[in-house]
Amino acid sequence: MKLLEEALKNIGDLDEISMKKAKERLDNLTKPRGSLGILEDLAVKMAGIKRELYPKIKNKVITIMAGDHGVVEEGVSAFPQEVTPQMILNFLSGGAGINVLARHAGAKIVCVDVGTAADVFHPDLIIKKVRRGTDNISRGPAMTREEAIKAIEVGIETAWNEIDKGADILGTGDMGIGNTTPSSAILAVYSDEPLEKLVGRGTGINDERLKLKIKAINRALEINQPDPNDPIGVLSKVGGLEIGAIAGCILGAASRRIPVVIDGFISTAGAIIAAKIEPLCTNYMIASHSSEEPGHKTMLKLLGLEPMLSMRMRLGEGTGAALAFNLVEAALKIISEMATFDEAGVSGQLE
Amino acid sequence: MKLLEEALKNIGDLDEISMKKAKERLDNLTKPRGSLGILEDLAVKMAGIKRELYPKIKNKVITIMAGDHGVVEEGVSAFPQEVTPQMILNFLSGGAGINVLARHAGAKIVCVDVGTAADVFHPDLIIKKVRRGTDNISRGPAMTREEAIKAIEVGIETAWNEIDKGADILGTGDMGIGNTTPSSAILAVYSDEPLEKLVGRGTGINDERLKLKIKAINRALEINQPDPNDPIGVLSKVGGLEIGAIAGCILGAASRRIPVVIDGFISTAGAIIAAKIEPLCTNYMIASHSSEEPGHKTMLKLLGLEPMLSMRMRLGEGTGAALAFNLVEAALKIISEMATFDEAGVSGQLE
Repeated sequence: MKLLEEALKNIGDLDEISMKKAKERLDNLTKPRGSLGILEDLAVKMAGIKRELYPKIKNKVITIMAGDHGVVEEGVSAFPQEVTPQMILNFLSGGAGINVLARHAGAKIVCVDVGTAADVFHPDLIIKKVRRGTDNISRGPAMTREEAIKAIEVGIETAWNEIDKGADILGTGDMGIGNTTPSSAILAVYSDEPLEKLVGRGTGINDERLKLKIKAINRALEINQPDPNDPIGVLSKVGGLEIGAIAGCILGAASRRIPVVIDGFISTAGAIIAAKIEPLCTNYMIASHSSEEPGHKTMLKLLGLEPMLSMRMRLGEGTGAALAFNLVEAALKIISEMATFDEAGVSGQLE
Repeated sequence: MKLLEEALKNIGDLDEISMKKAKERLDNLTKPRGSLGILEDLAVKMAGIKRELYPKIKNKVITIMAGDHGVVEEGVSAFPQEVTPQMILNFLSGGAGINVLARHAGAKIVCVDVGTAADVFHPDLIIKKVRRGTDNISRGPAMTREEAIKAIEVGIETAWNEIDKGADILGTGDMGIGNTTPSSAILAVYSDEPLEKLVGRGTGINDERLKLKIKAINRALEINQPDPNDPIGVLSKVGGLEIGAIAGCILGAASRRIPVVIDGFISTAGAIIAAKIEPLCTNYMIASHSSEEPGHKTMLKLLGLEPMLSMRMRLGEGTGAALAFNLVEAALKIISEMATFDEAGVSGQLE
């Protein structure tokens, strides 16, 4: 609990003065006011986070949190559980989607085993196994409260370690066969919409598995009765270990005033847990893409975040976050490199 | 007419065999089938364009076509016409939004004066002035049919010149105070929706100017009676010189099997003209972003294109296209760099 408490007491507001200055500068650049949309909003947010007008990004890191899910025994996934460790090894040998997109973005990846069911070994794997996968949420809690806190603290520690090594922006990533199921369950706790609208096909399950998935989530909510006012309780009852670590990663980044780019459905479930623990941490979140998973839009709305990419992606791993790094960098260049109306001798707006 | 005829006879189909091979390869990579969404579609399209599985992009070029619009005398814009030449000089000294985003993308910019009202001189400006701005479309045709063809041919020539110099992907860009007005008029010719849904605030006009703009477009359509079946006629009657050059740039790129990334509202108006002249040229188009301009979605739908970025941008200049280059490059890396299930020893999908 010590790491979590320490993180929470250091999460603060954005710097209004830097944001005002950024807005003023953007309004003087040679373009109609506001015409670069989210790029301008990002430049303002980054100024507020970093307390300076022209922050730079040098070291980008994607943290991939991996865990397994007891609920897969309900037949909720199109892939067998053995894929979780197999994909971890794929990440560490450079062949997965996130490897390609992280290299493309000039970002490093870090892979953490927070709770896979198998034993995975690789010299570059960070092993912080809280437990060997969660229990089946459709039959009881995923894990104990203590384990949920430990999972969050694995995330905080990971974020702090990377920041200590020089990371100035983080992106969240996930791996865990079955993890859209607990993510949907978390969303359902915080949304009034019917389950059918919040639950999607994950990696691409058929109609039959989709029915099993909705049924499993329904049972998970009934049996566990998660209390929305107790986000750590929600995580422990219907969540997942990697989802907790993602929440921790966000809280850890926010506590050090480091922006964190949120990937897709699983990462945003983690972001909801983080935001329910400490609402101020949304200040440090940057949404990346809008996932194909139908509940993702509702999640982002809950957080007040607006996605930039609309690619019909549903892979996770941090792939959307990796693509969005380029846009954050573009925003920082816009505010620092564009000419003002005066500098360029361009006439201003008529009204 | 010679350049246009030559371009048109060389625009062909995508290569189905390469596309099939690309799809097969993508389905064997370590991810759920289709889970990288538009990135996968792009990899398939690029294979079809370039007739090979792993095309590379080395030289990216944004072509900025500049022209003026007689209709500005109706009070349709928030900026005075003098801003067109001022912004051209800004492009050529590197201070505009497109300069920052093109540098960020590693792309070159080329700026062509197809028809500004003023005399603009700069050693790097390509001067191909067809005429000094269009006539006021709300009182008669924008230009003659011959001038419209000349404007298109300026675009074709620009595309071919850049391709001869090594460009392997183009992005369209525009500059011209008032040019959302003719772009909306072109859209109105091809859409059944009421004008109020197709016309937006461009650079950010107030309610009063918006009324003037809708009135001007209504009059332009009434007086000129553009025939949807005669796209060159539409361009000459209610279009613009830079819009014609953008259409030409697309036709020129397509005729050489070079992909062309379409920017926002003005560029997409040019893309509609190009597609109405030769529907096959849409094969070579890649949509970039969804503009704030309300009619843009309708335009993209007319073309069957799907935007990737949703940034609330409405600057033009090619800024959306420049941001999208990064995504096209990501797609090409996905298909060539990701490991297959066999290579990575990852179990496949259960059904």
